[in-house]
Amino acid sequence: MNDSQADRTATEVLTTDQLPSALTPFGRASRDFLYGQVWSRPGLSRRDRRWVTLTCVAAADSPDPIEEHVHAALAGGDIDLAEMLEFVLHFAVYCGWPKASHLEGAVGRQWDRIHRERGEETPPWPVLDNGTLGPGDMEKRLERGVEEFIDVNLTPAPPANSPYRHAGILGFVFGHVWQRPGLTRRERRIITVASVAIDDSPLPLRTHVGAALHSGDLTKEEMDEIVLQFAAYYGFAKGDALADAVEAAWAAKPA
Amino acid sequence: MNDSQADRTATEVLTTDQLPSALTPFGRASRDFLYGQVWSRPGLSRRDRRWVTLTCVAAADSPDPIEEHVHAALAGGDIDLAEMLEFVLHFAVYCGWPKASHLEGAVGRQWDRIHRERGEETPPWPVLDNGTLGPGDMEKRLERGVEEFIDVNLTPAPPANSPYRHAGILGFVFGHVWQRPGLTRRERRIITVASVAIDDSPLPLRTHVGAALHSGDLTKEEMDEIVLQFAAYYGFAKGDALADAVEAAWAAKPA
Amino acid sequence: MNDSQADRTATEVLTTDQLPSALTPFGRASRDFLYGQVWSRPGLSRRDRRWVTLTCVAAADSPDPIEEHVHAALAGGDIDLAEMLEFVLHFAVYCGWPKASHLEGAVGRQWDRIHRERGEETPPWPVLDNGTLGPGDMEKRLERGVEEFIDVNLTPAPPANSPYRHAGILGFVFGHVWQRPGLTRRERRIITVASVAIDDSPLPLRTHVGAALHSGDLTKEEMDEIVLQFAAYYGFAKGDALADAVEAAWAAKPA
Repeated sequence: MNDSQADRTATEVLTTDQLPSALTPFGRASRDFLYGQVWSRPGLSRRDRRWVTLTCVAAADSPDPIEEHVHAALAGGDIDLAEMLEFVLHFAVYCGWPKASHLEGAVGRQWDRIHRERGEETPPWPVLDNGTLGPGDMEKRLERGVEEFIDVNLTPAPPANSPYRHAGILGFVFGHVWQRPGLTRRERRIITVASVAIDDSPLPLRTHVGAALHSGDLTKEEMDEIVLQFAAYYGFAKGDALADAVEAAWAAKPA
Repeated sequence: MNDSQADRTATEVLTTDQLPSALTPFGRASRDFLYGQVWSRPGLSRRDRRWVTLTCVAAADSPDPIEEHVHAALAGGDIDLAEMLEFVLHFAVYCGWPKASHLEGAVGRQWDRIHRERGEETPPWPVLDNGTLGPGDMEKRLERGVEEFIDVNLTPAPPANSPYRHAGILGFVFGHVWQRPGLTRRERRIITVASVAIDDSPLPLRTHVGAALHSGDLTKEEMDEIVLQFAAYYGFAKGDALADAVEAAWAAKPA
Repeated sequence: MNDSQADRTATEVLTTDQLPSALTPFGRASRDFLYGQVWSRPGLSRRDRRWVTLTCVAAADSPDPIEEHVHAALAGGDIDLAEMLEFVLHFAVYCGWPKASHLEGAVGRQWDRIHRERGEETPPWPVLDNGTLGPGDMEKRLERGVEEFIDVNLTPAPPANSPYRHAGILGFVFGHVWQRPGLTRRERRIITVASVAIDDSPLPLRTHVGAALHSGDLTKEEMDEIVLQFAAYYGFAKGDALADAVEAAWAAKPA
């Protein structure tokens, strides 16, 4: 890919023609490798590449890239505000509340900026319905949590024998978050795979990568693209661990 | 402090007299600095130093140190199983689910190991009461979440205008987790301060450090000890940022 | 080492005599341990200690320490601008683009500051030679990538059977970055060892530590110093994992 094609991809991804300087080794490689050889690939939609990228920049919590990528995703129309806010909650679960809190601040700032730049009033955020919080009855919620856990992970649910599993995993993560509308399960899988690759705790990595592939929600080819996109944004060290987990899960795929 | 005193502290902290080798610069510094000059200090109880340490080793997710410190905390009796499991949930909220999942696995393994080493049957985990999940009614839960948010953070609660704030922060984190029995609020603050220092997102860092000091739950002297314990386990780079946040919060303390 | 010697080391490392306060436990330990007992050690040059430190502060992405250490490395003359910019690219590969992007911003700010403080015009950044991008022909680049992979890792190259390995590892990381001039391979090893220790994915950690030792590019004594420098800046939890990887790799060294 030549420079002008790489620049065109960068312009589309960043939704600005004020591209970062290519005067340094890093700047040059951003153009040639990141835009010229990663973002421009077929095999994964730009929206899906954004989920991987947003997870990585939010987890890395480097101030400017977070603002840039949130802005680009919203301004370019690949992701709308309600979806972005839904992403923040899913991200909070997998990468922790503090980073999510910072991320949600960035969403607010960029939403304002987009409308300011267009000379428009910023519209109010979407109104939430308490109904989306799911059943109040805790027994019911735990029951649904067990079902959702099995459905997402393709493994039996753990016993609800610790606060983490009881109030946390079954009551909240699977009893509520994964069941919310606004993002498809496939998209939640992409975000989760990137998140557990960042953490690289061995068991969650294996489980989520395996379930994403074995459920058929993501093909091997799509997962391979996710690995490359992830390695570019979170580094080849963690990328390596994710690549290995993908190969291992794929080899273990039931016929 | 001389070598044998440092070794005695190491023995108490690690609950083993098979101490790590002090034959390398790193091993020597572990003995001299970590045990000789940090763990042995007055001003913060060993139990409180364990909360900081457990948060750091679990966040760093280095396999061996997690097992060692979970083992030591349980075997030495500073923390009991129910408290450790409660810690796992609080940690999950602030450092993300995947690391917490790995951590809870370590708790199970070490709980078994302790009883195996004593030639005892491992007793079953504590039975959880669904009552601890709090009110089923979602309106009520959000109301309590708002109150708890104000009480913990000493600031007004944010509007519940995104999934992250609505289902997440108000419905779950403050509407449930911070209100659970099993750990004191002061202990939850210590764990939270260590967690947000790891993430070092500026706003959560400032808020939680400030609230811990301004609430009177932690004295300036205790917080200073937390900073040192944290820097030893998570590095002086992040330690520096925490130290600055503490000084800034302290300077801003209302008279 | 007494206080004034520790202060002298701190002054040299930070290139300022406005030292951080030593009035808190953390401040005292920074002086006594970090400067008095780590930076002042023989066995590793100050330039090499800077590579470890810069990697840690950039990965931790705590705002102030990044600016401080970039400033000190450039102002003290241990590292020149072109080398620092080369470091940013290598760091991007191992710790991800977002943190590198923030780091490169810091390099620009501190380069300006240094010249402003000297009352000089900031000179333009070095002009890059497109020749350093290597062969345009992708087949050739992949071939060279395979050779460089083997040469650096002392293991066979993986098959180019996924985007991550094809466009990423062989086409870019080893097909280009490791072959660039500006940093020696030994320096790239130091930066890589610190990076993979931060990520602590077991396989990359083992591979890079082993190759650094077995290639003879780093002696065991130098590697031991790297472990200590790393543990001080990234914490004893991750330091422990690196120390173990070093011992294991050393024990496995072919006679």
